[in-house]
Amino acid sequence: MSADQSKLGRSQLGIAVLGASGYTGADLVRLLVRHPAAELRVLTADRHAGRSIAEVFPHLAAFDLPVLTRVEDQSWAGIDLVFCALPHGTTQEIIAALPGHLRVVDLSADFRLADPEVYAAWYGHAHRAPALQADAVYGLTELTRARVAGARLVANPGCYPTAALLALVPAVAAGVIAADDIVITALSGATGAGRSLKESLLFCEVAEGAHAYGIGSHRHMPEIEQELARAAGRPVTVSFTPHLVPMNRGEFVTAHVRLGPGADVEAVRGALADTYRDEPFVRVLPPGVAPATRHVRGSNLCLIGVFPDRRPGCALVLSAIDNLVKGSSGMAIQNMNVMVGLDETLGLEQAPVFP
Amino acid sequence: MSADQSKLGRSQLGIAVLGASGYTGADLVRLLVRHPAAELRVLTADRHAGRSIAEVFPHLAAFDLPVLTRVEDQSWAGIDLVFCALPHGTTQEIIAALPGHLRVVDLSADFRLADPEVYAAWYGHAHRAPALQADAVYGLTELTRARVAGARLVANPGCYPTAALLALVPAVAAGVIAADDIVITALSGATGAGRSLKESLLFCEVAEGAHAYGIGSHRHMPEIEQELARAAGRPVTVSFTPHLVPMNRGEFVTAHVRLGPGADVEAVRGALADTYRDEPFVRVLPPGVAPATRHVRGSNLCLIGVFPDRRPGCALVLSAIDNLVKGSSGMAIQNMNVMVGLDETLGLEQAPVFP
Amino acid sequence: MSADQSKLGRSQLGIAVLGASGYTGADLVRLLVRHPAAELRVLTADRHAGRSIAEVFPHLAAFDLPVLTRVEDQSWAGIDLVFCALPHGTTQEIIAALPGHLRVVDLSADFRLADPEVYAAWYGHAHRAPALQADAVYGLTELTRARVAGARLVANPGCYPTAALLALVPAVAAGVIAADDIVITALSGATGAGRSLKESLLFCEVAEGAHAYGIGSHRHMPEIEQELARAAGRPVTVSFTPHLVPMNRGEFVTAHVRLGPGADVEAVRGALADTYRDEPFVRVLPPGVAPATRHVRGSNLCLIGVFPDRRPGCALVLSAIDNLVKGSSGMAIQNMNVMVGLDETLGLEQAPVFP
Amino acid sequence: MSADQSKLGRSQLGIAVLGASGYTGADLVRLLVRHPAAELRVLTADRHAGRSIAEVFPHLAAFDLPVLTRVEDQSWAGIDLVFCALPHGTTQEIIAALPGHLRVVDLSADFRLADPEVYAAWYGHAHRAPALQADAVYGLTELTRARVAGARLVANPGCYPTAALLALVPAVAAGVIAADDIVITALSGATGAGRSLKESLLFCEVAEGAHAYGIGSHRHMPEIEQELARAAGRPVTVSFTPHLVPMNRGEFVTAHVRLGPGADVEAVRGALADTYRDEPFVRVLPPGVAPATRHVRGSNLCLIGVFPDRRPGCALVLSAIDNLVKGSSGMAIQNMNVMVGLDETLGLEQAPVFP
Repeated sequence: MSADQSKLGRSQLGIAVLGASGYTGADLVRLLVRHPAAELRVLTADRHAGRSIAEVFPHLAAFDLPVLTRVEDQSWAGIDLVFCALPHGTTQEIIAALPGHLRVVDLSADFRLADPEVYAAWYGHAHRAPALQADAVYGLTELTRARVAGARLVANPGCYPTAALLALVPAVAAGVIAADDIVITALSGATGAGRSLKESLLFCEVAEGAHAYGIGSHRHMPEIEQELARAAGRPVTVSFTPHLVPMNRGEFVTAHVRLGPGADVEAVRGALADTYRDEPFVRVLPPGVAPATRHVRGSNLCLIGVFPDRRPGCALVLSAIDNLVKGSSGMAIQNMNVMVGLDETLGLEQAPVFP
Repeated sequence: MSADQSKLGRSQLGIAVLGASGYTGADLVRLLVRHPAAELRVLTADRHAGRSIAEVFPHLAAFDLPVLTRVEDQSWAGIDLVFCALPHGTTQEIIAALPGHLRVVDLSADFRLADPEVYAAWYGHAHRAPALQADAVYGLTELTRARVAGARLVANPGCYPTAALLALVPAVAAGVIAADDIVITALSGATGAGRSLKESLLFCEVAEGAHAYGIGSHRHMPEIEQELARAAGRPVTVSFTPHLVPMNRGEFVTAHVRLGPGADVEAVRGALADTYRDEPFVRVLPPGVAPATRHVRGSNLCLIGVFPDRRPGCALVLSAIDNLVKGSSGMAIQNMNVMVGLDETLGLEQAPVFP
Repeated sequence: MSADQSKLGRSQLGIAVLGASGYTGADLVRLLVRHPAAELRVLTADRHAGRSIAEVFPHLAAFDLPVLTRVEDQSWAGIDLVFCALPHGTTQEIIAALPGHLRVVDLSADFRLADPEVYAAWYGHAHRAPALQADAVYGLTELTRARVAGARLVANPGCYPTAALLALVPAVAAGVIAADDIVITALSGATGAGRSLKESLLFCEVAEGAHAYGIGSHRHMPEIEQELARAAGRPVTVSFTPHLVPMNRGEFVTAHVRLGPGADVEAVRGALADTYRDEPFVRVLPPGVAPATRHVRGSNLCLIGVFPDRRPGCALVLSAIDNLVKGSSGMAIQNMNVMVGLDETLGLEQAPVFP
Repeated sequence: MSADQSKLGRSQLGIAVLGASGYTGADLVRLLVRHPAAELRVLTADRHAGRSIAEVFPHLAAFDLPVLTRVEDQSWAGIDLVFCALPHGTTQEIIAALPGHLRVVDLSADFRLADPEVYAAWYGHAHRAPALQADAVYGLTELTRARVAGARLVANPGCYPTAALLALVPAVAAGVIAADDIVITALSGATGAGRSLKESLLFCEVAEGAHAYGIGSHRHMPEIEQELARAAGRPVTVSFTPHLVPMNRGEFVTAHVRLGPGADVEAVRGALADTYRDEPFVRVLPPGVAPATRHVRGSNLCLIGVFPDRRPGCALVLSAIDNLVKGSSGMAIQNMNVMVGLDETLGLEQAPVFP
């Protein structure tokens, strides 16, 4: 397929994707080939260096794309911005070694936790680029847009934190949800676990079943707590329990919360609706309507529903995203658009694919 | 396939299944054709009267089974026990009209709620057989076995209540879990919704997606509260939120609880382990091991795991069942075995089908 | 989400979609909301008239779209082209009643069979608009482009015929495949059966299973034969057997063919490659590479592979499409683009969604 | 769960399963724990030696089973029969080294091909136990029962050959199907590929997609040809194309055949019906009824349907099995029962699990 016609005659932003052979990298490429102001100039995948992306991801074979290379072989000429979709832990040193003029959106967990001690406690080793960490901006675009705009390095949020924080932060900040005693359960499709070869990710181990995992220990927990604490103005401890369900894409968050003093369910909905009124990608649903992951599949949308709980003084806040788009690659592109001053929706306008 | 050889020469219990064309009815038949002491003599399905079960459920075509009939056409000769797998609301009058010598296991919700006012509040009409209701025994076999043994009418529990109550009741009764502030989320496969023609149950509406439903209003909530209140000795209000996930069978419950005074996670596990030590169908898993629905598929097993929560003084109790077996037809047969004095495991010994 | 920015300042083609509440209608809308030169002005859905599309298809709620109406309530002002996505049989009279200035792409089967007697034989009633039938052009764009360009009424091909004919017609026309003795098996996801309420389409009836259907009687058979006969210059009889497999989207065709006199596998690949060399949506794969439906999901692509068969003098031609896009709505938009002289790829450039 | 009560007081057959950590091994165990005359005494899994089966297959945790060991550590005391569920190629030397008094059912491909040259051509190395090969009996129980009865070593058929040969052999032997020009397409769930760590078997690579594989090169082809040749009395070449579809269990075969001289579709059905009239596990369906994999799931059944083809003088024969049961472990147990003179249905009576 030829290049996007709407790109003709524009000066393009030169893009590198590091780690293009994972599902997150693939979805970055899927979205960026249609971005009218960005051009994919470098794709790295160390294990597959020298191969075409068509060999690794045949669904992208129809597009003219650079051959896969190794990170260490790049000159970075013609590159303006780097998406880093590498495994957690390997990213810090690679980003630290990049030329200073490159802007970076990091999709790993490496720069999400502002406190190096919290990082060390959850990841088992000292942070390897603490100086960079201090400059990294947490890129939950709708809620941190002003800081993203001037950032050189944006830490793209985790998929579960994205769904949970979009649903909770405005209400916690407004005081209509109590910051303590938040119980979050979440469901995710299998792409959330990446493309690594683990027996637990084989089709036959995932299909026709469901279970909780990472119980009490999932690394997205401190990230959720950090941002809720920022909103509440004091430390927050949450309960967070993810579940794997047999689907490719999609993440669903069910948050059980206590209402703040004097608040009711409509106050929660109101705080969310006020925050997202003009947002193109976040929709607060009317009373009685629940979100569903199939209604956001393949898109950058986040749907949020608010419901009364049977327990007096409590409420449920539900949200649905596509973990690979709003929960990863789509949010990364949204951050890129903000960082370089483009219209925030460029490359992200496609409608959900249902069924 | 010829009849079970082990049946030869035994005096068989004569069985009728009312509502044999639904998924619950089918699973009753699947299990009863292998039961060494029971014989299927009547299968009713009003819409399909006159047809063979092979036309309605081709997977059962290999077995010699009676032709489908209408309830009103039965003489009940040769029948000792009736499984009633009819829709909620239609069951009360049918059971009230059955000859008094027939024992009944009702798989609908009609006799589960002991208080007729609670029934009326949740089902929108006065109970139509309140006298029978007073005699009905709630058949959560492991926990109400003594009362089941002498019962004429057993109300088989709902699928979600089964998974939730097996995981919680012994710990609530022992005081190691606080009876208030229990937050239950649950996942179910699509068989939980039955075989009715609803757009929301079409393959394309369920596959590749997940969502919460019945939020704050699911009719299994009062049933869970009733039995937890019985264990706690005082009224209980729970939060219960079910989710539909794209699989056929399986139900997963994640219960967030506060520990009772002086209790810790091991006390919860201990209370459960003590209760189920000699139970053939309920297994309390070792520390760190989570249940999964795929490990009980097609079987009457219930797996329970206990985990610390990140919130101090809290814990998670997780359970997994096959909603059609332990959550419905299997439990019904287990109740039958107890009612008539048979070995409780008869007809229920098959191993889970994985993958 | 606001309208596509690239639409600003253009004179838009006014579009009506008749039958917008089915899966085909939904995918037309999904694609057309991003089409830079077309504007959705009328959406009909008789049963849902008066409701917003968000109630029928929540995944489209983010877009500004007209309220659903009834066909008979339209004035057709501002409409240039009508997509007709109504059930087979109901379409003929509706199209016959449309104002003559409207161009029409019909996605039903009503105008695909050129011979009214063949239509009557397969559909059980005389054609109700035989005059229109005579003018209808079969819109397999890549192969009938010239006729589509001047057409007022285009009959959009069936999904199976699309996948089969793109794989076979150029090779039959070139004589490298013998037109007789073609055996076609095909696999389809459940969207191929539409959104109608049938027990056989419930999630639990489709998941975890596979089977053939419409054996020897599927109505796409005469359509395949008609177009192969056109290519061969003589009547053709094929064997065609579709299978339902548990996925939402995707169609896979496996055609077993005899080679023409003197031809080999490379001659077949060559005939296809020559035909599709400059086509943006059809790719002939290199030797040894098989197509897969997941590599075209959500896109207008068709992938074709050619393989030697173990039987001497025989070959296999395999093709994969998304049945809702290239097999239906995408092809319809491609036909529209050709009919009105737009760039053929407009609105169809999105990359496949994998996973 | 305690041992099968019906086992009490019987003298049990001592069983070893070599390769108990694969899906085939797991299904052998699932079925054998309920076998009234067999006792699992040895389970090997070299990589997992020393672990309980509960760690490898939690769904089997409820049963009292031996700890996993290494093949080389066995004394074979108390063992009467060995099921060998090891990878192709590794099996020959292991079986050759077993004590001569042990009966063996080999579930690998190692002893299926009677001609060592054919084996070498398809497997790329000379057979390592040609003497044993000469004595091996091909164990398609319904069709080779007499030879299985006296065998020491039975080669259990491949899953695709089982479904194809049960559907074709009696009709080829009767001359009502022509032995040449047989075109077989087949669909399989992912368990057919085993539990090995391959990227192509990850959930996200299999779900929501379908494709052909092993085109013209699948190793089950010579096995099918060998047995059809035996039935026809002369060499046979078939076309065989398998497809992977997103389900766990199930195999569906669609065979396109030419009718023999003077034969019609009813003659084919008749030949099959005559052969299987008294068979407990094979059912020939009435005219117009197609088999489906979901109707045999988890069971040892094989369903066969016969249909007219649109091509004159041709027919379709369709069959459905559970690839792990009738296509592997169930057939192996059926062979065991015949080898040692037990009732052939022991351990195999369970009904299919639907949905």
